[in-house]
Amino acid sequence: MRLNEQAAGVFTIAATPFHSDGRLDTASIDRLAEFYLGCGVSGLTVLGVMGEAPKLDAEESIALVRQFVSRAGKLPVIVGVTSPGFAPMRALARQAMDAGAAGVMIAPPSTLRTDDQIVGYYRQAREAIGDDVPFALQDYPLAFSVVMTPQVLSRIVMENPSCVMLKIEDWPSLEKISALRALEHESRMRRVSILTGNGGIFVDFELERGSDGAMTGYAFPDMLVDLVKLSKAGERAKAHNLFDAHLPLIRYEQQPAVGLAVRKYILQQRGAITSDAQRNPTTPMSAAARAEVDFLLDRLRRFDSRSPAVA
Amino acid sequence: MRLNEQAAGVFTIAATPFHSDGRLDTASIDRLAEFYLGCGVSGLTVLGVMGEAPKLDAEESIALVRQFVSRAGKLPVIVGVTSPGFAPMRALARQAMDAGAAGVMIAPPSTLRTDDQIVGYYRQAREAIGDDVPFALQDYPLAFSVVMTPQVLSRIVMENPSCVMLKIEDWPSLEKISALRALEHESRMRRVSILTGNGGIFVDFELERGSDGAMTGYAFPDMLVDLVKLSKAGERAKAHNLFDAHLPLIRYEQQPAVGLAVRKYILQQRGAITSDAQRNPTTPMSAAARAEVDFLLDRLRRFDSRSPAVA
Amino acid sequence: MRLNEQAAGVFTIAATPFHSDGRLDTASIDRLAEFYLGCGVSGLTVLGVMGEAPKLDAEESIALVRQFVSRAGKLPVIVGVTSPGFAPMRALARQAMDAGAAGVMIAPPSTLRTDDQIVGYYRQAREAIGDDVPFALQDYPLAFSVVMTPQVLSRIVMENPSCVMLKIEDWPSLEKISALRALEHESRMRRVSILTGNGGIFVDFELERGSDGAMTGYAFPDMLVDLVKLSKAGERAKAHNLFDAHLPLIRYEQQPAVGLAVRKYILQQRGAITSDAQRNPTTPMSAAARAEVDFLLDRLRRFDSRSPAVA
Amino acid sequence: MRLNEQAAGVFTIAATPFHSDGRLDTASIDRLAEFYLGCGVSGLTVLGVMGEAPKLDAEESIALVRQFVSRAGKLPVIVGVTSPGFAPMRALARQAMDAGAAGVMIAPPSTLRTDDQIVGYYRQAREAIGDDVPFALQDYPLAFSVVMTPQVLSRIVMENPSCVMLKIEDWPSLEKISALRALEHESRMRRVSILTGNGGIFVDFELERGSDGAMTGYAFPDMLVDLVKLSKAGERAKAHNLFDAHLPLIRYEQQPAVGLAVRKYILQQRGAITSDAQRNPTTPMSAAARAEVDFLLDRLRRFDSRSPAVA
Repeated sequence: MRLNEQAAGVFTIAATPFHSDGRLDTASIDRLAEFYLGCGVSGLTVLGVMGEAPKLDAEESIALVRQFVSRAGKLPVIVGVTSPGFAPMRALARQAMDAGAAGVMIAPPSTLRTDDQIVGYYRQAREAIGDDVPFALQDYPLAFSVVMTPQVLSRIVMENPSCVMLKIEDWPSLEKISALRALEHESRMRRVSILTGNGGIFVDFELERGSDGAMTGYAFPDMLVDLVKLSKAGERAKAHNLFDAHLPLIRYEQQPAVGLAVRKYILQQRGAITSDAQRNPTTPMSAAARAEVDFLLDRLRRFDSRSPAVA
Repeated sequence: MRLNEQAAGVFTIAATPFHSDGRLDTASIDRLAEFYLGCGVSGLTVLGVMGEAPKLDAEESIALVRQFVSRAGKLPVIVGVTSPGFAPMRALARQAMDAGAAGVMIAPPSTLRTDDQIVGYYRQAREAIGDDVPFALQDYPLAFSVVMTPQVLSRIVMENPSCVMLKIEDWPSLEKISALRALEHESRMRRVSILTGNGGIFVDFELERGSDGAMTGYAFPDMLVDLVKLSKAGERAKAHNLFDAHLPLIRYEQQPAVGLAVRKYILQQRGAITSDAQRNPTTPMSAAARAEVDFLLDRLRRFDSRSPAVA
Repeated sequence: MRLNEQAAGVFTIAATPFHSDGRLDTASIDRLAEFYLGCGVSGLTVLGVMGEAPKLDAEESIALVRQFVSRAGKLPVIVGVTSPGFAPMRALARQAMDAGAAGVMIAPPSTLRTDDQIVGYYRQAREAIGDDVPFALQDYPLAFSVVMTPQVLSRIVMENPSCVMLKIEDWPSLEKISALRALEHESRMRRVSILTGNGGIFVDFELERGSDGAMTGYAFPDMLVDLVKLSKAGERAKAHNLFDAHLPLIRYEQQPAVGLAVRKYILQQRGAITSDAQRNPTTPMSAAARAEVDFLLDRLRRFDSRSPAVA
Repeated sequence: MRLNEQAAGVFTIAATPFHSDGRLDTASIDRLAEFYLGCGVSGLTVLGVMGEAPKLDAEESIALVRQFVSRAGKLPVIVGVTSPGFAPMRALARQAMDAGAAGVMIAPPSTLRTDDQIVGYYRQAREAIGDDVPFALQDYPLAFSVVMTPQVLSRIVMENPSCVMLKIEDWPSLEKISALRALEHESRMRRVSILTGNGGIFVDFELERGSDGAMTGYAFPDMLVDLVKLSKAGERAKAHNLFDAHLPLIRYEQQPAVGLAVRKYILQQRGAITSDAQRNPTTPMSAAARAEVDFLLDRLRRFDSRSPAVA
């Protein structure tokens, strides 16, 4: 199936499992895909930043895509194809679609500055990968130093019919989501799927502002699935109680660099992968960090959703 | 009194109250100072970024310092003197100390890159303000684009006896605090006060890693004061219960730009200032944002510290 | 007189002379102003980056402006008022105009990214200094990290009648100048003065593309004056012969940091100032650099304009 | 042959010839290689930034390397392998060496800030490509935002025996070259080859400061070859006369973005390639720019090296 503008729910950023010697752990890829499916996610995103994409060479990248696609069954798989150049972007995008991916995701290069440069870049990217490849635009100024106004995003959406999804992880994100939905309601932008990132740290209010779900690698995708359901069902208090219980850990995982180590550690604890090894370069967890995560996991375990602090 | 390396507790970043027409609201300055003292803070920091310092001209800046100092009684007042040049930095620092400030705070210019440039900058800054002016170094890479390793901070501390405090708001901060304290314990760095910022979003664990307290503008300084006490008393569960209840709002306030509007709005709600007006340029709160803050304040009000979710 | 959109010729960025102990050298200010007038310049720019503006405190800054204005006679003086905040910008702009300045110059803060942010900033800056203060916009992406398209510059010009001059030191500059003049010819932008900087390294072609002259601190303003005359008179070969003879030194002076030392050294050699001292922080010339500059000056002296290499 | 620390002379950054429809022009690759050899260069650098490396996919990249290596005869070929990740860097480096390349060149990722991060990065890069692959370090702060002091470069050289060449295009470069050679003379750094870039705009003095030659894509490599010879032979006046005659064009070519179009245009004029086409994204030359280049080429043609302006 092809990614389209109705996509909603939780698209987990898939981790990339390695053996401790740095080889891809293909058995864990199977197990991890099964884990994500069991969490009730709506889709997977592979080769994202949290997926250690730049650490894989071209052959490993496409092999990883193929395996995740084959294990994802009917679920859509989005493949990160961000690249310093259009030729490698095109090569990976075509291979990924041939392998059964639902679409690709493209972040802007950090050299873009003006509105016209940004719009021009996405035009060229779309021409490079082909009009038939649905793509998500990743809007993440903190990581990529490129700031896109709602007007610029709207120009890109209107100019490129194959742009079907915005991953909004601007910081702050809330007014931007409201502004984008307002542009839609005023018929100045067509409908697109809006998913949010930033590790989920604002997903509670982002859903209320009109996002369709989350695209992040938080190690409890099952919680995010429940949260989206509660929020969309109008169960506001329950949604925030659930979110607030996870917020201390969400925040901890959102830390740059060490956040990946935390996620892999928890995925390992939850049995989803065999080893929490990263491929070099790594930012390992200290003993103190590990104890803090254990402490947060313990508190989470004792959270009783039936009698939260705020009823 | 002079700021020294034993400083601990909560140093609130003071807001700067304006009338709705943009004039300084001197009556509210008095009221705000009283509010902070009533919260039990250990000191004040004025002319910080959250204090809208760049929006004041030279005369207003020193007038604001004088008024806060006079109202702070015995509490130390730290004055932000960060400047593009050493001459204005020196002028403000000398005036502030003459007015009774306890010390000053200096952030690095965003052009610094190498370790030696950073160390050299603080040497020149110290020479500019004079050896007799105690200063805090503000380590805030996300805002200033300058990254200082623990080793560089240690070099600065050892080379400049008047550097008595580090405000650590690196992101992540936890390993850095541990590394700095380790340098102290190995006698490779003398003791300095370490306070943390980032809106308080990691203050729970920062205290456990060895920080002496917080320097931030969070609109509930009274909570931070309680938190420091609980943490230093070893009441870990109580400390985290209190912190976790505030975390949804702490996170909301930590948003760039709109965070200041949220803080002033809450300070106004709490009766600490008359108007939440900012001087131009402003990032106002939308109606949606205001409703979200009201929602968070309501949940906070219903938090019962005697029966938290995690006991 | 007020700066207006007809301004043309050479506006020298004035150096700021210091004694070797760091005090302002007021006698040299008089001498330097006389030197610039003798070179035939059309105006002066004081408190520019090359004028070590951030190293002066508020009192020194305005004193310097007053002295240059009083010595410039009928020549217009433009005052750099770039500042992290609008209140100090306003204070200096008003004082400068009261002292007889012709206008001010404003560079953007490095935090601006989107087209709308840039346009909004100049609107607020104009409101801050007052509609009655003519201003030059400094477009220098390499120094300030802010990229403005011709369209954005046009929006600023059209929205702010008091914006009468663009100092274009984008890199490259040539197509931008052509694009701006085309916008004028198509009546999509009103006429403004365009002067160029970048140390003069493209001034030969910039004049041919439609600039009105140069605003730079090159230590031979007399050459620049001759060059503008030759270029405007259509003496293309003579203009390039003159320019090319100076290009090795122009290039040498354009080096960041050390360029200022070179300029002051040459100004001292030419008798325009007593000492080439800079106020801290300084980048001094090495003995090797000094020998290289002497070598270039010697070659320049032997350049015979009557029989250049290319006749 | 393997690249080693004695490498000297001119290593031309090879352009990558395309047909006007975007396909690689393999016939022109042969012709271009022959042209470079005829110019007397000492080596070639392929897949540099000026070689439009990011616009090639993995297969095209290695095909290009193979063809240039086969045509370069005994001349060493350096291959740019800079990449966002170590796995693709390793893959290309191993393939290139298997194809007969003499070594590789590695620029730092723009996220590096502290001295230790930089040193650590090159350690990991060397481990990734293997100890047996000689490499050049590209020091180009303006393009990559990473600033390396002579001390940091020295640490990298001493820690990685396979680092045999520094490509210095810091700006300014002169004092850095002197500092590096001083470290060598004091036996604090082993000998490495130092070549310089920045389009050659300081190559006259860089040679005098101790560089071993140039690595740049200037469209007259034959002039650079002569210049190196004259400079090394102590013919200072002749060297500068030659250089100064080319400086107006060197400066013109050094412009970002449009510089590549200028180079390809001149290479086409000189018969070295069939088409000056670039692969998308391109910055084309305007008619005005083309006329300016023609003007500069005409002046260059009329330069008589026997009777220059400065004799």
